[in-house]
Amino acid sequence: MAANGEVTTTNKKVVLRRYVTGYPTAEDMEVVATPGIPLRAPRGSTDAVVVKNLYLSCDPWMRGRMTRHDDGDAVPAADFVLGEALVNYTVGEVVDSTHPEFSAGDLVWGMNAWEEYTLVTKTEGLFKINHPELPLSYYTGVLGMTGLTAYAGLFEVGKPKGGESVFVSAAAGAVGQVVGQLAKIAGCYVVGSAGSDEKVNILKNEMGFDDAFNYKEEKDLDAALRRCLPGGIDVYFDNVGGTTLDAALLHMKLGGRVVICGMISQYNLPEHEGVHNLFCLIPKRIRMEGFSVMDYFHLYARFEKEMAGFIKEGNMSVIEDVVQGIEKAPDALIGLFSGRNVGKQLVAIA
Amino acid sequence: MAANGEVTTTNKKVVLRRYVTGYPTAEDMEVVATPGIPLRAPRGSTDAVVVKNLYLSCDPWMRGRMTRHDDGDAVPAADFVLGEALVNYTVGEVVDSTHPEFSAGDLVWGMNAWEEYTLVTKTEGLFKINHPELPLSYYTGVLGMTGLTAYAGLFEVGKPKGGESVFVSAAAGAVGQVVGQLAKIAGCYVVGSAGSDEKVNILKNEMGFDDAFNYKEEKDLDAALRRCLPGGIDVYFDNVGGTTLDAALLHMKLGGRVVICGMISQYNLPEHEGVHNLFCLIPKRIRMEGFSVMDYFHLYARFEKEMAGFIKEGNMSVIEDVVQGIEKAPDALIGLFSGRNVGKQLVAIA
Repeated sequence: MAANGEVTTTNKKVVLRRYVTGYPTAEDMEVVATPGIPLRAPRGSTDAVVVKNLYLSCDPWMRGRMTRHDDGDAVPAADFVLGEALVNYTVGEVVDSTHPEFSAGDLVWGMNAWEEYTLVTKTEGLFKINHPELPLSYYTGVLGMTGLTAYAGLFEVGKPKGGESVFVSAAAGAVGQVVGQLAKIAGCYVVGSAGSDEKVNILKNEMGFDDAFNYKEEKDLDAALRRCLPGGIDVYFDNVGGTTLDAALLHMKLGGRVVICGMISQYNLPEHEGVHNLFCLIPKRIRMEGFSVMDYFHLYARFEKEMAGFIKEGNMSVIEDVVQGIEKAPDALIGLFSGRNVGKQLVAIA
Repeated sequence: MAANGEVTTTNKKVVLRRYVTGYPTAEDMEVVATPGIPLRAPRGSTDAVVVKNLYLSCDPWMRGRMTRHDDGDAVPAADFVLGEALVNYTVGEVVDSTHPEFSAGDLVWGMNAWEEYTLVTKTEGLFKINHPELPLSYYTGVLGMTGLTAYAGLFEVGKPKGGESVFVSAAAGAVGQVVGQLAKIAGCYVVGSAGSDEKVNILKNEMGFDDAFNYKEEKDLDAALRRCLPGGIDVYFDNVGGTTLDAALLHMKLGGRVVICGMISQYNLPEHEGVHNLFCLIPKRIRMEGFSVMDYFHLYARFEKEMAGFIKEGNMSVIEDVVQGIEKAPDALIGLFSGRNVGKQLVAIA
């Protein structure tokens, strides 16, 4: 309790110590404790919400914000600020609010700082959780940003038709696992690539993928795609870029669509690898399109309802990789870039 | 005249002597004369047309058909056959016909062999010329396949809106010059790149481009694009691929479209260059799409009418590079790949 009678607490947070080049390391981040943070929304405010974060989501896109960019570089979001908390999606509980639409006890998710308690004053990015009967952590993934990314990217950009073939890379990851299962629900033939035999087994045996391969064990991605998709690919959902994208281009069918969602294979390289097979776009009339989930939050209510239904009906398996404690958050994030996680990586902090 | 009283003639043709690797050379082709070709459509046929070719169109896409491909390679059209005539668009006059829709004296254009006389039995690719008041040679270019390529690629794939910025590479070429002028008609800000100061002058002073640069004189394409298009690019119409495509990606605006029409900078390389800046597709939500004019011939009648109007109204300048005589055809085709031609390259053969 502070001197003025205000209820306060210490607030642990994950801060960026230095901008990153190459793969992020433990030295790039630090968990610090800030004392005396108020647990009540400022009196007199009308739009403030104090959120106690319960789960932190670890996502590859955070890597881009850990690099120091030049002005004018095309980046999805501004660089993180040194000494301040990292920012990404969290799931939490409202502990106090002066905002008319939020009350103490509400379960919420949204873009917050990587810390134990966040004072939110821009609530347009804060969503109430409408399915508390499902595991709360799902709102870091399948029911949150990464689920919506999969849903919007597949259906709004890739537009698969029943019977078409869909290939997804990083298929055991948070986005990929949802893409593949949504494509199965849509009646597609679905093949995924992942980085371990364990992940491949999960894809084939727990997530209903028609086929999958371990790209680290394939000498020739071209041959792997020919083997798994002899008729070619209608929709390639690309989470990795680089050599997998290059190989997939060779196997696209006439009128194929390449959904450019992420390029995790490239984020830690000093210069991105060259893609050599873009000529394929011409004879095959391929559309290749980048997107950002930020443009699709207007679909969230519909998505949440449909996805909750798929989960309850048993049509959507969810694999999470959960670590306990905010102290473990930097290491969990680092692990994403070597593919150490199996399924959606998240941190339980309370 | 043959022994049976049939009127015949010799028929000179440009044949492929060997499949090409790297840049095509004079030794790859040969002009040969075949004796005793009938000048009448076969009696008893009901769909045959004998065309006397007057102009041969030289186009970069022919290069792809001069390479020996493996089965299953993605190519826009089958490899040429050794010892047989090259195939591309020609403009000609019907000398005899058993087809009810064609009569001797009709002026036509379409995909024919590179020879003096062609017996056409698949007439769905043969178009009557509806504007004989315009130079006949225009049907190899601005009123023919390359004009339709520009029209369909720009309007159906690129979809520029008035006030948007359009960048076109190989802008003084057959497709590029039409793209740029159509974009001006559509109210866009138009910048072109070309390979000589002479071409740059033509773009700026004869074709109404807002700006243009000689890519061979620019040390840094990135800087050239920043200088000419400081606000960025809404539509990039790509005829060249490679480093120009890579640089353009850095300058695309949010929601930009990259129309992949051709990649002339790559056709003679043993392996295509890598494109490193595809990550830009994500933050900028770029759509990159390949197309083939073959999918747009249903628009031809509308296109021909509009384009003839633009030419007559003085809104469409046409620059042609015409060589005389079928013997010069191989050299004219070879010249395309060093950018020797200024404007649409064609061969007048009668």
